[in-house]
Amino acid sequence: MSDCIFCKIVAGEIPSAKVYEDEHCYAFLDIGPLSWGHTLVIPKKHVERITEMSADEVARLMTVIPKLAKAVIEASDAEGLNVLQNNGPVAGQAVPHLHVHLIPRHAGDDLGYRWNAKQYPEGMMDEVHRKLLDAIG
Amino acid sequence: MSDCIFCKIVAGEIPSAKVYEDEHCYAFLDIGPLSWGHTLVIPKKHVERITEMSADEVARLMTVIPKLAKAVIEASDAEGLNVLQNNGPVAGQAVPHLHVHLIPRHAGDDLGYRWNAKQYPEGMMDEVHRKLLDAIG
Repeated sequence: MSDCIFCKIVAGEIPSAKVYEDEHCYAFLDIGPLSWGHTLVIPKKHVERITEMSADEVARLMTVIPKLAKAVIEASDAEGLNVLQNNGPVAGQAVPHLHVHLIPRHAGDDLGYRWNAKQYPEGMMDEVHRKLLDAIG
Repeated sequence: MSDCIFCKIVAGEIPSAKVYEDEHCYAFLDIGPLSWGHTLVIPKKHVERITEMSADEVARLMTVIPKLAKAVIEASDAEGLNVLQNNGPVAGQAVPHLHVHLIPRHAGDDLGYRWNAKQYPEGMMDEVHRKLLDAIG
């Protein structure tokens, strides 16, 4: 897409600290990192959400994650890593070109997901389960 | 692994609200959900971190995500979705059997990642970039 910042990065029209590239994927350092080494992995083809990708497209993108995750952990001397992919503005997606965040983690870094876990009220889990099975078809 | 709660769920020794299963993957409702419909997708084979998986194993697991993500969004009437995979206790991994969270999102739900973005000090992004390229090899 002509006005997409990530498409421009893939095309080399906007500079980036590229860490990996193949036929389908491009990876680069996030310029506003949550921690040093925070890396973005994107498909070259413009797509906004994971629900718009085919199974094969997702597979091609995700096959590079183990290799890149290892490198990000090594380069940032991290103890852990979050793999995060946000779909939609309400989910925290700031750039509408699909991207997978690789976020190196260290003890006491004040990062992570807000873990406000809940309990299903009586009967509700069964109802959600039925809806989900119907939706999968 | 004999003492792994997720291996026991896959084996049917612990009940779960199963939403999907194939040769390699198993998906079920999280019993302590962040939002209704919060689903976990796991490889049947015990592995702790994504860095321990082969590219093919990751691809096989992730190919089911678009289909399941669509169903989770539909069943929970969500506006967005986080795909989250935590590696290591410091990254929020509570069960040491790899799992991908599908977290349905709605406006004002008080969920999401703690987005404490930083700026690289002068010269540091280049240094991290070099280390990362060396680590990728």
